[in-house]
Amino acid sequence: MPSAPSSAVEIDIPEVKSDLEAVFARYEAALVTNDVATLDALFFDASSTIRYGENENLYGFAEIAAFRARRSPLFLGRKLERTVITTFGRDYGVASTLYRRESATGRLGRQSQTWVRFPDGWKIVAAHVSAIDDPATVGS
Amino acid sequence: MPSAPSSAVEIDIPEVKSDLEAVFARYEAALVTNDVATLDALFFDASSTIRYGENENLYGFAEIAAFRARRSPLFLGRKLERTVITTFGRDYGVASTLYRRESATGRLGRQSQTWVRFPDGWKIVAAHVSAIDDPATVGS
Repeated sequence: MPSAPSSAVEIDIPEVKSDLEAVFARYEAALVTNDVATLDALFFDASSTIRYGENENLYGFAEIAAFRARRSPLFLGRKLERTVITTFGRDYGVASTLYRRESATGRLGRQSQTWVRFPDGWKIVAAHVSAIDDPATVGS
Repeated sequence: MPSAPSSAVEIDIPEVKSDLEAVFARYEAALVTNDVATLDALFFDASSTIRYGENENLYGFAEIAAFRARRSPLFLGRKLERTVITTFGRDYGVASTLYRRESATGRLGRQSQTWVRFPDGWKIVAAHVSAIDDPATVGS
């Protein structure tokens, strides 16, 4: 017999959404300044946490932290576009955004994060980052 | 003042995890057979639903459904690897998997899905699919 849902899911409760927006902004600031301690603190420390990156597939918090520790701090600056943050209930949310880097002309980045709020705060439990040829410049 | 979490988050409650595993398998079967009705039924029908695909960025359920409707049914077969499904509480989960296609030798696919259980069942609220050069074949 399938398990039952706990209750109806409330979408975008204003104070929950604004909390997650603030954490998302903190993550972005840490990313572009390569603030590894903050980035690590915002990923859920578990073997189940997965981050697919532009060129790497990281399984578990340990692999993610090792990647951060060795990542070049150069050329991380970027501009976000079409960012959408949506919350479900009080403790879950997703953040999707496109991005462009001056150091990667002609490429369009996409970043997806799944956030869960634990007793010690919001953490990313799964992330996926990839880049494709920028449809705005293809053929130009 | 930040909003408070509703309660501690229970990870991988067995019956919840097995529910989501079953839905994930149903999605995969629908994908490789191009069963568009089932694929549509498993995406949350909302303007906030986002799917970043191998070559396209789809914002909102309408764009996702339009993409499904026009997608070629050929060469969708694939083999999954390192699939990890994790649930948080009773109504929330993430599924991450790698995949390889015989029609795309030398490329390694990555698929991330965020699932939420609504009164009418589990739905994908955000997805991200991308492909990179297969580390197993690079340089070979």
